[in-house]
Amino acid sequence: MSYYAEPLAHLIDELSRLPGIGPKTAQRLAFYILKMPKERVANLSEAITRARESIIYCSVCGNFTDTDPCGICRASYRDRTTIMVVEDPRDVVALEKTRDYKGLYHILHGAISPLEGIGPDDIKIKELLSRINSGVKEIILATNPDVEGEATAMYIARLLKPLGVKVTRIAHGIPVGGDLEYADEVTLTRALEGRREI
Amino acid sequence: MSYYAEPLAHLIDELSRLPGIGPKTAQRLAFYILKMPKERVANLSEAITRARESIIYCSVCGNFTDTDPCGICRASYRDRTTIMVVEDPRDVVALEKTRDYKGLYHILHGAISPLEGIGPDDIKIKELLSRINSGVKEIILATNPDVEGEATAMYIARLLKPLGVKVTRIAHGIPVGGDLEYADEVTLTRALEGRREI
Repeated sequence: MSYYAEPLAHLIDELSRLPGIGPKTAQRLAFYILKMPKERVANLSEAITRARESIIYCSVCGNFTDTDPCGICRASYRDRTTIMVVEDPRDVVALEKTRDYKGLYHILHGAISPLEGIGPDDIKIKELLSRINSGVKEIILATNPDVEGEATAMYIARLLKPLGVKVTRIAHGIPVGGDLEYADEVTLTRALEGRREI
Repeated sequence: MSYYAEPLAHLIDELSRLPGIGPKTAQRLAFYILKMPKERVANLSEAITRARESIIYCSVCGNFTDTDPCGICRASYRDRTTIMVVEDPRDVVALEKTRDYKGLYHILHGAISPLEGIGPDDIKIKELLSRINSGVKEIILATNPDVEGEATAMYIARLLKPLGVKVTRIAHGIPVGGDLEYADEVTLTRALEGRREI
């Protein structure tokens, strides 16, 4: 038996299927939505459908976009000789916020993970290879510094090497503002390996 | 400048206006929604509008319902001599889950809070008074055990006393499974005051 009227029970159910939204949060959100002005509810509901309907994958880099190619792939001021390879569209956002990188991106939409049954063909590696031409000078592998991300970087590096393109990996080390004491051994080892003269 | 395509930026913005949803969670939810099957997205969006459109306040008790009066107010097996007064529809859910209470409810939709500018006329106290008739034997005040809830309970008790109806307040004390050591002084005092012979 449900303690809620049917449309409310249904809303709580739909909300609790979202990631990170437990039953309590779903309930709180649903009750909040019931008290929202109808106009704001319509906006929210429409924003959800419109984003899902109009956002597509960029046919060049694989990022989420509402134009194809996406804004970054189209931008004339961006350096077309460099492609940064990331796992997820969110990584692009994080990197763009640094305002430091002016090259292009390639989004893999995942990482190789035998444990989860994700092989090289399940992520957009083929699409990356098809972008390599004489104009591309460097591929920066910016997959996550975890087991899957490292394996993916190694796999791609091995595929790219024969094509004569420079392949680099982002540096691992102590995060800025981090504390040596709390860094794990692997990070410390990487930080030492990557040491530079000052 | 936004790092997202406009429909995506708009969705993140709408989501982050929900309570307890920060910018990071909004981003995570938005990207999840983009990868959801279109059908599930339509379900979610429709559940939001439908709940907001079809859920109304019960004209008797003030609870959220899709029928008027609500299921509890209509149910013939419920004890119509007792009304439990709570602050929020969520409290009804919590109380119904105990399966112990078989009376009716009255939802105030708030508590008196001079600090937040909420006076007796801003919550549904008038509506409670209009429900008191010769058939009502007991009003249980189950507002929260905080300053606002206590003040609201006191205020309502004073209004009801002259009407000759029995007014009770739920017990305060150590929660079941709680630890004496960690209970605050006020709760301990209340627990002592409320002690019973065993």
